[in-house]
Amino acid sequence: MLTLASDTLRIAALAGGVGGARLADGLQEALEAGALSVIVNTGDDFKLWGLHISPDLDTVMYTLAGLADPVQGWGLERDTWMTLEMVERYGRDPWFRLGDMDLATHILRTQMLNEGRSITEATGDLAAALGVPSHILPMCNEEVQTKVSTPDGMLDFQEYFVRRRHADPVTGISYQYSLVPQMTPQVGLAIEEAGAIVLCPSNPFVSIDPILQVEGMRAALARSSAPIVAVSPIVGGAAVKGPAADMMRSLGHEVSPVGVARLYRGLVDGMVIDTVDGALAPRIRDLGMEVEVTRTVMKDRAGRQALAADVMNFCRRLGPAKERAQA
Amino acid sequence: MLTLASDTLRIAALAGGVGGARLADGLQEALEAGALSVIVNTGDDFKLWGLHISPDLDTVMYTLAGLADPVQGWGLERDTWMTLEMVERYGRDPWFRLGDMDLATHILRTQMLNEGRSITEATGDLAAALGVPSHILPMCNEEVQTKVSTPDGMLDFQEYFVRRRHADPVTGISYQYSLVPQMTPQVGLAIEEAGAIVLCPSNPFVSIDPILQVEGMRAALARSSAPIVAVSPIVGGAAVKGPAADMMRSLGHEVSPVGVARLYRGLVDGMVIDTVDGALAPRIRDLGMEVEVTRTVMKDRAGRQALAADVMNFCRRLGPAKERAQA
Repeated sequence: MLTLASDTLRIAALAGGVGGARLADGLQEALEAGALSVIVNTGDDFKLWGLHISPDLDTVMYTLAGLADPVQGWGLERDTWMTLEMVERYGRDPWFRLGDMDLATHILRTQMLNEGRSITEATGDLAAALGVPSHILPMCNEEVQTKVSTPDGMLDFQEYFVRRRHADPVTGISYQYSLVPQMTPQVGLAIEEAGAIVLCPSNPFVSIDPILQVEGMRAALARSSAPIVAVSPIVGGAAVKGPAADMMRSLGHEVSPVGVARLYRGLVDGMVIDTVDGALAPRIRDLGMEVEVTRTVMKDRAGRQALAADVMNFCRRLGPAKERAQA
Repeated sequence: MLTLASDTLRIAALAGGVGGARLADGLQEALEAGALSVIVNTGDDFKLWGLHISPDLDTVMYTLAGLADPVQGWGLERDTWMTLEMVERYGRDPWFRLGDMDLATHILRTQMLNEGRSITEATGDLAAALGVPSHILPMCNEEVQTKVSTPDGMLDFQEYFVRRRHADPVTGISYQYSLVPQMTPQVGLAIEEAGAIVLCPSNPFVSIDPILQVEGMRAALARSSAPIVAVSPIVGGAAVKGPAADMMRSLGHEVSPVGVARLYRGLVDGMVIDTVDGALAPRIRDLGMEVEVTRTVMKDRAGRQALAADVMNFCRRLGPAKERAQA
């Protein structure tokens, strides 16, 4: 494990799936065991064949356990698809790709949830068994469903994202729940103890915003004296992965780190943007934020480590946050 | 498909796992589609990681679908064990072998049961999807748990059978349930319409008896005018498979087809016994039963077909049952 001088820093990172998981992995390598808490979106969670699927939690967990498929970024490396083939033989539509090893996660999590344990406890149990040294914290214990409005009507997130391959123009995002999602004590503590807070390069609308919408979350972030920085998921006018750019466009935002910075105004102290977008730095500074320009596309393990180091140095440079207006 | 002259016969077969499934398979091949109903023990059912496992139903279903592992007799041919490996990685004891394809069955069945469908409906759905031409009927819709008394105390059936490899001397069998198991309309109809009723070469104590204990089952069998025959699972003083012989011994029964016949006295009209036990036929006739002596060990597909033909011919020879005392 790479040990940096900064390894006593405690970091709370807000993350969705693949991009967030990769930066979290870089941060984990740079920090002492237990010093990283990843607060993960669960608005994409859904039920399939009675199993509770948590795509972002699993992507983060598999990545931090060193088990993620390195090419696709989600799922487990060297997984197979025998169960899914049999499910198809039973006449069920295998539209969501669940690998055989991956299924163990869903089966055991569903069992724990059905026995009355929280998603926070279940995630902690599974991640500990895989030897993950960081805290993987679901954004809340309540069930939240991110809904995507499109010209064809309102869609469940996975319906939009996987089944329809995020091809629909998105006209709005909303959240459904029966119990108001509340910040958990574990997330509250992670934010309180953090020396730096990082919004990972995840989709601002369907990965980061669901986390921010959890009751108590924005207030806890505003209370923190730690620097809060966001890494832009938009690089050179496109998303590194997924539909973030299309969503920004269809929702009327500028498809650039400036557009991302505007979304996070009042919340973050600094933006990390890619070198290809370096010319945009002054426009972001005009929004009252500091800017770090570096390589943000993590092609490999070294890329994750380099970005993590840059993010941590940026946070140290920013130092304790100035007074922040409560969002 | 082999078509015999007898193919308009309707048969109701009572079965446990591998041995019962193999005879049922032979009968299915000999009969018109839909003419065979297999009434299956569900006293071995149990929950594992939140999934509802029905070992005997699955063995019968996979066998009648032509998908069973031909060597071990249970599970699916060419199945793999990736999920189980991951379950073990999560620190859970993988004591019960669930294959990846097999898991699809448990996942979908559990989903249907949790949605409020009966085990009879769920089994019908799954078996139809696999193209099984026979009716696979769980013995009841209530949950029943076969318990095995041993010197080490009372054990769950799978604890005794799989985890402890049926090594404990069995001193008693009992059944636990919260709702009294009732004969289902589907089982009632299958028995009523049957032109012959067959007790497959399954364990008399833990496969056939749980079926007979279901409320209404013995009365329905007694009401039937069809010949009722049993195929002895004991051949040459040993069980073809499983702990039947050990159980007979430890429960104080003669370990022979005569001992089996005594268990079924008052219920069956005829016993099918193996040629190696031919000398015992007079002792069984003394119990008031007819006897058919033939090869009963089904080594291959031809063996199943031959035994099925012998059983069907025996039933025809017996003809409509004489008056029977209600058990």
